[in-house]
Amino acid sequence: MRIKEFQSYLKNKKIDYCLLLNSEKSIDHNFTYFTQIPESMAVYSLLIIPGTKKPFLQVSNLEYSIAKKYSRIKRIFKINKEPLKQLKSLVKGKKIAINKNNITLNQYRLLKKELKAKFVDISRSLLKLRSVKTEEEIKLLKKSCSFSSLIMKKTINYCNKNKTELQVKKFIEDEIKKLNLEPSFPPIVASGINSSNPHHLSTNKKLNGFTVIDLGVKYKNYCSDITRTIYIGKSDKKEIEIYNKVLDVNKESIKSKTISCSKLFINAKNKLGKYFIHGLGHGIGIEIHEFPNLKELSRDKLKENTVYTIEPGYYKGRIGVRIEDSVYVLKSKKEILTKVNKNLVIK
Amino acid sequence: MRIKEFQSYLKNKKIDYCLLLNSEKSIDHNFTYFTQIPESMAVYSLLIIPGTKKPFLQVSNLEYSIAKKYSRIKRIFKINKEPLKQLKSLVKGKKIAINKNNITLNQYRLLKKELKAKFVDISRSLLKLRSVKTEEEIKLLKKSCSFSSLIMKKTINYCNKNKTELQVKKFIEDEIKKLNLEPSFPPIVASGINSSNPHHLSTNKKLNGFTVIDLGVKYKNYCSDITRTIYIGKSDKKEIEIYNKVLDVNKESIKSKTISCSKLFINAKNKLGKYFIHGLGHGIGIEIHEFPNLKELSRDKLKENTVYTIEPGYYKGRIGVRIEDSVYVLKSKKEILTKVNKNLVIK
Repeated sequence: MRIKEFQSYLKNKKIDYCLLLNSEKSIDHNFTYFTQIPESMAVYSLLIIPGTKKPFLQVSNLEYSIAKKYSRIKRIFKINKEPLKQLKSLVKGKKIAINKNNITLNQYRLLKKELKAKFVDISRSLLKLRSVKTEEEIKLLKKSCSFSSLIMKKTINYCNKNKTELQVKKFIEDEIKKLNLEPSFPPIVASGINSSNPHHLSTNKKLNGFTVIDLGVKYKNYCSDITRTIYIGKSDKKEIEIYNKVLDVNKESIKSKTISCSKLFINAKNKLGKYFIHGLGHGIGIEIHEFPNLKELSRDKLKENTVYTIEPGYYKGRIGVRIEDSVYVLKSKKEILTKVNKNLVIK
Repeated sequence: MRIKEFQSYLKNKKIDYCLLLNSEKSIDHNFTYFTQIPESMAVYSLLIIPGTKKPFLQVSNLEYSIAKKYSRIKRIFKINKEPLKQLKSLVKGKKIAINKNNITLNQYRLLKKELKAKFVDISRSLLKLRSVKTEEEIKLLKKSCSFSSLIMKKTINYCNKNKTELQVKKFIEDEIKKLNLEPSFPPIVASGINSSNPHHLSTNKKLNGFTVIDLGVKYKNYCSDITRTIYIGKSDKKEIEIYNKVLDVNKESIKSKTISCSKLFINAKNKLGKYFIHGLGHGIGIEIHEFPNLKELSRDKLKENTVYTIEPGYYKGRIGVRIEDSVYVLKSKKEILTKVNKNLVIK
């Protein structure tokens, strides 16, 4: 997306080339970001971004026609029998950037052997670059969030005491497929005692008590993420109090003028206490978890054109509550992209 | 699965510990193999296998209850705020094995800093270990293949000239879901001009001419893989000749007494020529592509209790044919696990 800006950065840092490798073993989301090639079935493809000249791709025979069709980077080389030797003839530089969050030790060993250069890590710079979205990305993320919101509304309508967690999960997956989309992660449906496990795998348990529904879709590679918690049956006063406390933290965190992600987390943690056992949120984009990171030790700030989640939670015994929105920052204002009612629905 | 055998190997090689790391970024299939924990949603979990003592897990809070429920390794530590320091207190060894096909450069940097040991690569040894299946694994693979075969039969019945590639793909995905299974890879449906692209992404094109259908499911973590090619419309003599040539190579490759994977590939290549543009097959197991590798430069042999695919193909212009079976070697005999008719179906 912001490839020219990235190339200026490379030039500035005196980096001759950046290599981004996509393989069956390790999908590099930066590769997807710049090329916009759909992720599935990558066999071997390498994006080569020089500091100054035009970027190009080196892809396996099997990927060639897919790359031809989808890639925004239009210079494409098919690999020959010796891809590393071919790469050496294409890339002549002394300082090469790679994504050390993605390249495995064995891939690195092969690269280093062939290209005798200094390898520097580009992972954080790329995560930072991607944390600020372009206009086009914002459009895609808004669309993605609107699809997730639509599915969430339908799912809440679908839920009742006769449905099992697995039935609701399947309902969500079918709705995603009906829209010709992919899930951005496997949907979570967790009810009663299971609701207090943030990463519960759904079972044949019938819905009863707090029911956490966490879902998201990918629209043209862009992820959305929303959680709502509803109540099946008769709730008591204490349960409603806890729900409203989490809801307040959700609203306050979104409204807050604080741009420090660490402070936002600490404020939420102070209000919710020890039963809030995960981060407050994360950036979304090509990946479901991106920068910024809303955790205690994070140094990230909420910048203009960032899209991130706010997802306070409370997990204790039979009580599990999480309320999550995807939020967009523009001109210091926040826009909630997941427009679904947050008052407690009791069914 | 064969953890005791693996521990003897470690002891033999004077390796104190083997560390297998599962993270959102990089799923280690060896982790799945030994623990049998379902793959989805791994946040941070580490399997620690000592050469002599009992193996144990170090997992994030979010993964703890899932690990408790599914893991075959029953000693489980929750990570504390400093997972690497905690690891250091649990692992005291001089020679540590890691999977260099999976660990990223940045993960390695952190590990190396904390555990001042010699790190050796265990990737090939584990791939070799996993290439020979246990009785239990054979059962799971047989079951997985029988589900894929059932879905293939239904899919062939479903196909006709009014259906599009995407409709057939959706049909397959729905059938997989009906059986409460996951696909082992995104199904491929490629018709007419698209059939000659082995990794085609399905479109709204109506079926016409050769139609390649490649699908597989995961049953309790174990993958199956089958391809059939059918013909929609009126085929000519040349097309039928090509189909039968590919079919002959499929049958001969399965029957062959040769145990050299390279020779098997070369024999097939000699018969099919330059329009056969991929490998002849691959092992299947926890992963869809495992050892042995049926390629020109492979040194792998077909051993007892190996399960692998045979998938000759021919791709030129409007003609794309691939016929793939999953095969099991026992007492030097071959059993085809994907029992679906291979004579050309014309519809």
